[in-house]
Amino acid sequence: MRKTVSILGSTGSIGKQALNVITDLSDKFNLFGLAAGANIEALKEQIIKHKPKIVSVQDEKAALELKKEFPKLEILFGREGLEQIAGNKQNDIALIAVSGTAGLYPTIAAINNNINVALANKETLVSAGSLVMKLAKEKKVNIIPVDSEHSAIYQCISNKDKDFIKKLIITGSGGPFRTRTLKDMQNATVAQALAHPKWSMGSKITIDSATLMNKGLEVIEAHWLFNIDYKDINVVIHPQSIIHSAVEFVDGSVIAQMGIPSMHIPIQYALTYPQRCKGIESETLSLTQVSRLDFEEPDLNKFPCLKLAYQSGKSGQTYPTVLNALNEVAVEEFLNTQIKLTDIPNIVEEGLNKHNPMPANDLNAIIAADKWGRDFAKNLINKYLIKK
Amino acid sequence: MRKTVSILGSTGSIGKQALNVITDLSDKFNLFGLAAGANIEALKEQIIKHKPKIVSVQDEKAALELKKEFPKLEILFGREGLEQIAGNKQNDIALIAVSGTAGLYPTIAAINNNINVALANKETLVSAGSLVMKLAKEKKVNIIPVDSEHSAIYQCISNKDKDFIKKLIITGSGGPFRTRTLKDMQNATVAQALAHPKWSMGSKITIDSATLMNKGLEVIEAHWLFNIDYKDINVVIHPQSIIHSAVEFVDGSVIAQMGIPSMHIPIQYALTYPQRCKGIESETLSLTQVSRLDFEEPDLNKFPCLKLAYQSGKSGQTYPTVLNALNEVAVEEFLNTQIKLTDIPNIVEEGLNKHNPMPANDLNAIIAADKWGRDFAKNLINKYLIKK
Repeated sequence: MRKTVSILGSTGSIGKQALNVITDLSDKFNLFGLAAGANIEALKEQIIKHKPKIVSVQDEKAALELKKEFPKLEILFGREGLEQIAGNKQNDIALIAVSGTAGLYPTIAAINNNINVALANKETLVSAGSLVMKLAKEKKVNIIPVDSEHSAIYQCISNKDKDFIKKLIITGSGGPFRTRTLKDMQNATVAQALAHPKWSMGSKITIDSATLMNKGLEVIEAHWLFNIDYKDINVVIHPQSIIHSAVEFVDGSVIAQMGIPSMHIPIQYALTYPQRCKGIESETLSLTQVSRLDFEEPDLNKFPCLKLAYQSGKSGQTYPTVLNALNEVAVEEFLNTQIKLTDIPNIVEEGLNKHNPMPANDLNAIIAADKWGRDFAKNLINKYLIKK
Repeated sequence: MRKTVSILGSTGSIGKQALNVITDLSDKFNLFGLAAGANIEALKEQIIKHKPKIVSVQDEKAALELKKEFPKLEILFGREGLEQIAGNKQNDIALIAVSGTAGLYPTIAAINNNINVALANKETLVSAGSLVMKLAKEKKVNIIPVDSEHSAIYQCISNKDKDFIKKLIITGSGGPFRTRTLKDMQNATVAQALAHPKWSMGSKITIDSATLMNKGLEVIEAHWLFNIDYKDINVVIHPQSIIHSAVEFVDGSVIAQMGIPSMHIPIQYALTYPQRCKGIESETLSLTQVSRLDFEEPDLNKFPCLKLAYQSGKSGQTYPTVLNALNEVAVEEFLNTQIKLTDIPNIVEEGLNKHNPMPANDLNAIIAADKWGRDFAKNLINKYLIKK
């Protein structure tokens, strides 16, 4: 039986690969809706090629423009558009691959309508993990992670083993500054920070990989997804990115998921789950060709973002929400060449120190904390502004 | 609820560790029977310490001697003793850790009586895999492998994934001669061949590790256990012995089981399956302490036994039975310093070339082939005898 899928964030890196998956496995999937942000040209091509039943874009103006070209197509916009597509009962699964906290609303809409979620949006669980996982449990909805690390962990935990987890081991390549000095990082250009050695991803997540905030967000995400204490989640730097993460069980046995560094596999797995399929990019890993795997501890002095993420996770309440909001603004300002790469953790730390936390169990508290974090970071930019 | 366990081969390396497991997890296990070979002194100590309900030894003389010391204990001997202990309906699980083809009979006795088998005896599946797996399927009995490689694969295959296997990857340390020349192997002493770099095991299996026949037998065993074609079973040399084996799925995802090189974990897993428990030797693997894992192709010129095992497996019928029988005799003669290490594959190859195969689907054909192999090898020893 075919699965009906909607893809939110269809013009991004994950969304495009997801469309490749459902095109490749066209006997297994029907496309229902597509949602994109501001990249209307790319969305137009996708509409022509993939024939969605419904689409949504970021703003009304773009929606009206699109309507002229596709008069018979149902076209929505904004937050409501995302929610209507993700929450439509025709879906078997909704892939949430929009970036930022915008992913939170359609995720909740899907869960509320008993639709399984393939979750490629980190911020949803970082900001609102408690709320989202509680709701998913109530509604008996699967949240299947798309991030390669969480997909790895998800694949490592069989039903019979789920009560015997001791520890999660999240691996990371270490990013472009693993072998560089702190001074190199202080002087890093945007181009240098975007030159990820192993993974081709969007710019926000690539900068997060350069600061290791990405691993920090993943730790918080893993905490919520798998219900594991922060003290039992370890980050290991593994430059070859072949072991995508692992789980240690109480008996000392470790199950790891491995593969070539390609997002195609976790995207496809999330969509075909619980099945596996041979796909176009199911490239075989050859351990003898890889020949060598290395592992090292992360350097928390060089990468304070990882430490800050653990701290905010352990502190709980709205701290992770604020961490994420502060970081989003700071990364954007770095990409706009307004601040230094190494000032991202400074901005995050100042914000966390000033934040008055609230319980993170309702959406209003989360949205307020998110707004507080963004405003705080924006007000702080002047202090760190690069003199040009 | 406690599981009732019998341990056949209790004075061997696996048997002793299994007794440690059930002593450590004494709230989970009852001991029913113990069976040993000729090491009566060690068995006496085990009887006093572990209080089995029934024991068996190799020959009648030893049984009578033991009876004097333990007049109230039921004491059996020989093949029938093994069968009666393994097949007793009181068992929930029988650990078959006797060495050689002697393991075949109690394995069949256990299966016939619907008792799950923890199988540490390679020869059973190598010689009679078709027969044993068919019977296990009929009787709905689990054959849970104890070998670290097969335990790894067993742990990597969740119920939902079992139909999507593409390939098995069996790892091996490469043994003591991995970095030595063929000439070193030709002149190898017994002590050199027994100096395994990673695993502490019995002498037969340690010699098999030195020739890589061990990997070959494991390939055949894996073929039967997991119902996978020989062409889809790869051997990878991995000197650190941290990844104990892995499974590649059709989507390109690879699941691997890792741990410190200790037989304690797979023995315990086989006994506690489908649960996992924290045990005395559930030592934690630290990837950052291990720091590096290497992989290379096996050198089939230096280790022809591996090639011979694949050939015999692919040829099927009674070829693997004969391979195993020829190898057992040749290893024994090497341990007795009668032949060179590098003549083991020569003897195996000559035997395989001379063998007239039979279908391996009844016990008589298997026993006849096993006997033919042993006799052939014994008759061949003179040709390879080391001149002293």
